[in-house]
Amino acid sequence: MPAPLVTEQKLRFCDTDMLGHVNNAAYAELFEAGRVEMLAPLGLLRGPHAVVIARLEIDFLREMNWPGEVRVETEIARIGTKSMHVRQRLLVGEDVTGRARSVLAVIDVETRRAVPLTDAWREVLARWHIPDDNAA
Amino acid sequence: MPAPLVTEQKLRFCDTDMLGHVNNAAYAELFEAGRVEMLAPLGLLRGPHAVVIARLEIDFLREMNWPGEVRVETEIARIGTKSMHVRQRLLVGEDVTGRARSVLAVIDVETRRAVPLTDAWREVLARWHIPDDNAA
Amino acid sequence: MPAPLVTEQKLRFCDTDMLGHVNNAAYAELFEAGRVEMLAPLGLLRGPHAVVIARLEIDFLREMNWPGEVRVETEIARIGTKSMHVRQRLLVGEDVTGRARSVLAVIDVETRRAVPLTDAWREVLARWHIPDDNAA
Amino acid sequence: MPAPLVTEQKLRFCDTDMLGHVNNAAYAELFEAGRVEMLAPLGLLRGPHAVVIARLEIDFLREMNWPGEVRVETEIARIGTKSMHVRQRLLVGEDVTGRARSVLAVIDVETRRAVPLTDAWREVLARWHIPDDNAA
Repeated sequence: MPAPLVTEQKLRFCDTDMLGHVNNAAYAELFEAGRVEMLAPLGLLRGPHAVVIARLEIDFLREMNWPGEVRVETEIARIGTKSMHVRQRLLVGEDVTGRARSVLAVIDVETRRAVPLTDAWREVLARWHIPDDNAA
Repeated sequence: MPAPLVTEQKLRFCDTDMLGHVNNAAYAELFEAGRVEMLAPLGLLRGPHAVVIARLEIDFLREMNWPGEVRVETEIARIGTKSMHVRQRLLVGEDVTGRARSVLAVIDVETRRAVPLTDAWREVLARWHIPDDNAA
Repeated sequence: MPAPLVTEQKLRFCDTDMLGHVNNAAYAELFEAGRVEMLAPLGLLRGPHAVVIARLEIDFLREMNWPGEVRVETEIARIGTKSMHVRQRLLVGEDVTGRARSVLAVIDVETRRAVPLTDAWREVLARWHIPDDNAA
Repeated sequence: MPAPLVTEQKLRFCDTDMLGHVNNAAYAELFEAGRVEMLAPLGLLRGPHAVVIARLEIDFLREMNWPGEVRVETEIARIGTKSMHVRQRLLVGEDVTGRARSVLAVIDVETRRAVPLTDAWREVLARWHIPDDNAA
């Protein structure tokens, strides 16, 4: 039964900016923290292949303030031939503070060109695969 | 004749990550650098009002590598009642390395609620207003 | 019996740089994360007073790699009239990866000038006060 | 006639923190930006050797505020057998906002062990070598 990968992150003081709240780029860092925790066990961050991000969409739903702990939920929305779509949420307590959708491609580190997703990767990714129609 | 606001930024060594290139969160930082340079003269980063970001979409078109200088072009795509849409590009030399679109709202710092864009702000924003139909 | 304040932090992917390991500025962020967790309950990060850092010394003892969890230990080494010395360690598992010593001053937010440490602050700080002669 | 290497950096909005000024970790990033600009032409950031930082001391002399441009001056204070000492200053306009001293070692990327500085490196480094006795 596919389920989101959950990772706990901690806000850092330097995530804040002069507006007093957590800066928007920190949301991008926290979403990335969730994605890489999913991809690392696939060997997709070291070795002959690497995952690159092609597109990132973030909805900033609520301000976040330091101090705080953030729960990052990461799911695979779509597994394509050479790319995958990732759906994510940030939560502080019960509040959803942000949502993201990203498109990732796997490249050959030498040639920097996209390569097809292997069956082995697909099999692992299926663990977190919740198609858009089934998403909460 | 409206034109993009152009700001020059410099990549930092710490913008890179273990994949050897500039990390995706640094793109978010560079796009923000362009937006705030537009908003600061309107008094929208200090004082009773603040601009908050509601949505950010980034297309990562090319990897960037350290060292490098980045040109950030920022335009207003749409001026609404309580929000504005911003269109941006990152360039390294002639290469467009990223595109972004963001939705910004102005809030009252005390109440944290969105307020309508004033005529004074609209007048200044018009300087960079290139509607989507006219965009390059 | 004074003891270090312990805070757990998590390395982020974007803490790494193109040399493959955690960037030196991330050490500074992690040490700060420990200090502010000590200072926040004293009301020294919001309100009429703020803590500013006057000096920071870091010894980088071992490289850190992503992924990883970091334990930050923070102690007060010396409580002066208008400043305090903070002694810190970073640990990954049993390995001490960094040591830091910093000098902090409390300023009046309006005047930006240093103010004497009050007895109330001293009393709280005593909880973590391990003079240099007694330090491990 | 040795002289400091000068590099111009630009403060980013996200360099600020909730205290309203530039965060201390950004000073570390800016000092690093100066050092790596010196080391890159020596081939010490890619290839079989890498420079690692063993110690960093920063004196925070003045707050910095966004927006702003920063001038980073970097000099070699001492060239040892396996390490070098670097002396740096940050300036905003005429104001010195920070000073740093760092100890760098060159390691073999494979073995992660320090290697002696070669004569070729020493020759290049001499261009910026201002011994402590001669420093301003």
